[in-house]
Amino acid sequence: MHTVTLGPSGTYSHRAAGAVATDDEIEFRESIRDIVDAVADGDAARGVVPIENSIEGSVTETLDALAERDVAVVREVITPIKHGLLAQSEEFDTVASHPQALAQCREYLDEHYPDASIEAVASTARGVELAGEDPSVAGIGHPDNATGDLKVIAADIQDRRSNATRFFVLAPPAARSDAGGKSSFVVYPGANYPGLLLELLEPFADRGVNLTRVESRPSGEHLGDYLFHLDVDGGLFEERTQAALAEVEEIAENGWVRKLGSYDVEHVV
Amino acid sequence: MHTVTLGPSGTYSHRAAGAVATDDEIEFRESIRDIVDAVADGDAARGVVPIENSIEGSVTETLDALAERDVAVVREVITPIKHGLLAQSEEFDTVASHPQALAQCREYLDEHYPDASIEAVASTARGVELAGEDPSVAGIGHPDNATGDLKVIAADIQDRRSNATRFFVLAPPAARSDAGGKSSFVVYPGANYPGLLLELLEPFADRGVNLTRVESRPSGEHLGDYLFHLDVDGGLFEERTQAALAEVEEIAENGWVRKLGSYDVEHVV
Repeated sequence: MHTVTLGPSGTYSHRAAGAVATDDEIEFRESIRDIVDAVADGDAARGVVPIENSIEGSVTETLDALAERDVAVVREVITPIKHGLLAQSEEFDTVASHPQALAQCREYLDEHYPDASIEAVASTARGVELAGEDPSVAGIGHPDNATGDLKVIAADIQDRRSNATRFFVLAPPAARSDAGGKSSFVVYPGANYPGLLLELLEPFADRGVNLTRVESRPSGEHLGDYLFHLDVDGGLFEERTQAALAEVEEIAENGWVRKLGSYDVEHVV
Repeated sequence: MHTVTLGPSGTYSHRAAGAVATDDEIEFRESIRDIVDAVADGDAARGVVPIENSIEGSVTETLDALAERDVAVVREVITPIKHGLLAQSEEFDTVASHPQALAQCREYLDEHYPDASIEAVASTARGVELAGEDPSVAGIGHPDNATGDLKVIAADIQDRRSNATRFFVLAPPAARSDAGGKSSFVVYPGANYPGLLLELLEPFADRGVNLTRVESRPSGEHLGDYLFHLDVDGGLFEERTQAALAEVEEIAENGWVRKLGSYDVEHVV
C-alpha cells in the first residue's frame, strides 16, 4: 500500500514503515505534519510517524497533528534504536543530526566530543548524508547506513542501553477499526476545574482498563488549558472501553473526544 | 544575586530573569542543562529556565534536568511571548531560530514563506544575531531586538494569539521554601501496574488540592516506564499538601519523590 514516512532513505521511520509496506511502496515526506496531512487528505493510504521514544519521550509534533487532523491509528510498530556515530574518519568537528537523536546521545557527545559543534538538521538520515559529503561532519544513525566513505566511528552511543521508538501507522478515517488490543484517544475537556484530570481517568480505572499513557498538550488557548492524549490496554470492541469512553464524553461535553483507533503492536528488529 | 539564564542578551529567558536580577547580575549560559548544573554545583545563586509554553507545551530538557539534579524551585515567572520576524529586508531565504520558536510560528512561515529554509539554532537571540550579520537570514524574536540594520518585517507571527511562557527560578537546595501558593514535585513510582497514575493523583483530589499539571517523562529504563512531574495549587506549608505527599511517598516506596519547592507566581510584561 502507498505509504508515506519521514525520509530520506535510512531513517528509523523508514525501518518502521518496512513493517507495513515494501520499499517501492514507500514515499518520503519532509515533516510529520506533511505525513499526517497526506493521509488525512487521501493522498496516501498509510502514514508512519514516531509517537514516543523511551529516552526522549513524546514526539509533540505527532501528538499535535493527531489532535488537529482526522486520521485513524491502525497499528503500532516498536523499533529498537541503535545509534552509531558515522563519519569518514575521526577528524570531524561537527555532529549533524535530528534534534531528538542529538539529545539521545548527549552524554556520549559531551564526554567524547565536548568541542564538536552540534548542528540540528531535519532527520538522522540528512545528517548521515552530510557526513558522506563532508569529512568535517559526523552523523548519527543505524550502523547499516555507513555506506560509501562512511565508517562506524562508535556503535550504540545512545545515553542508555534500552532505547526504542513507538511508531503509529496512520490510515484514512474509514480504515478505523474497533479490533486490536490497545486504543488511543484525544480528549479536550473544554473546561478546567480541580480534579478534572482525575475525573477523566477514573472511568477507565473503575472498569479495570489500564491507562498505559497520559500526555497533556497545550490547547493553545491559554497557559494551563490542556488537551489529553490517552492510551489504554483495551480494544474499542470491548464493552468496558466503550462504557468508560461514554463517561469521558459526558465529562467533556463542552469539548470533544477523538477516537484515534484500536490496534495491535508489532515489533521490528 | 548572581543569576544564570539562556543567552545571548535578548532571549525571552533574559527578559524573565529581569524579574529576579538586575542586568549586571545576569550571566548567560548556552543550555538549560548548563544552568541547572551551575545552580546545583553552587556556581550561581539563581537560575532561570523555561518550563512550559502555552503553544509548544513542556520544555522537556528542563523537566529532565530537574529530575536529575537537586535544585529548588523558588519562584515562577510568566512572560508573554511576542514573536516578530526580524531581518534586514524582505529579501531573505532562510529563517533561523530556536526550534521551539520555529514551531510556534510554523503556520505563519508555511503560509507566507513556504520556500524559506528553516534553520534550527541554539536560541532565538542567536537567530536574530545571524539575521543582523547576514541579509539572507531572518530571525524570530521580540521586536525590541530589531536593532542595527534589522527591521521588524512582521509582528505577532506566533500561531495563536495567546502565547506565554512559564519560567522557573531555581536556587540551591538550601533555599527551598515551604512558603508560596504553588508546589512542584517529581515522582518516580518505581513500579508500573494498572491504575498506578490514578493512585498517585487521588491523594491530592481527596484533600481538595488542585493538580494544575501532570507531565510524564520516560524514566529511560524501558518504553512505558515513566516518572511524573506534578504541579499543585497548594503550598508545602499546608497540612493537606503534606498529607497528600506522604501518601504519594508510600505509593512510590520503590522509587523516589523529589519536592522541587513551593513558590509564588510573578507576571512580567
